[in-house]
Amino acid sequence: MAGVRSEDKTPTDDNGARVELLRLRNSIDNLDAALVHVLAERFKCTQQVGLLKAEQAMPPADPAREAVQIERLRRLAVEARLDPEFAEKFLNFVISEVLRHHEAIAGT
Amino acid sequence: MAGVRSEDKTPTDDNGARVELLRLRNSIDNLDAALVHVLAERFKCTQQVGLLKAEQAMPPADPAREAVQIERLRRLAVEARLDPEFAEKFLNFVISEVLRHHEAIAGT
Repeated sequence: MAGVRSEDKTPTDDNGARVELLRLRNSIDNLDAALVHVLAERFKCTQQVGLLKAEQAMPPADPAREAVQIERLRRLAVEARLDPEFAEKFLNFVISEVLRHHEAIAGT
Repeated sequence: MAGVRSEDKTPTDDNGARVELLRLRNSIDNLDAALVHVLAERFKCTQQVGLLKAEQAMPPADPAREAVQIERLRRLAVEARLDPEFAEKFLNFVISEVLRHHEAIAGT
């Protein structure tokens, strides 16, 4: 209500901020949808890798390959101005999920 | 070498499997590059959200918004044939990183 403001902001500021927040959240939702779909495609690939490794009796984990992946992703992150530490944590998070799947495939 | 095989596989099988593994890993590397770039864009958005929230003295976390995001992402995951549990864990992983950033912005 007019005149009932406890802080040093105008109602227009507040409204502008709300509109801006909505705009940003809309972009975040679009990007999250993209992430889910790319992750779904990535798991389709790793699922096939898991089957192949089980058929060939190869171990589920491949530390040499993971080291190369992490190094590459850190480099890409720097180029994209994403925190390389976060990129590494993210890849480890995804790989640990993939290994769970591979171990499940190999165990059946 | 020919004749030096300890397992019940032909060299052709092994070679075919290697080629297939390489093909899949190439796709995984492409998808990882996509993920890093989408994540970089997402953090650009959440960085702006963090600044806006700090300016407006809004709390860094928004549990109501997060609940809606998780529900939506689980639904999208099911459509994309991605494990919805993983999608939720993934979003929580990203959000926890975002909150660290927001708290850092608000604290400065």
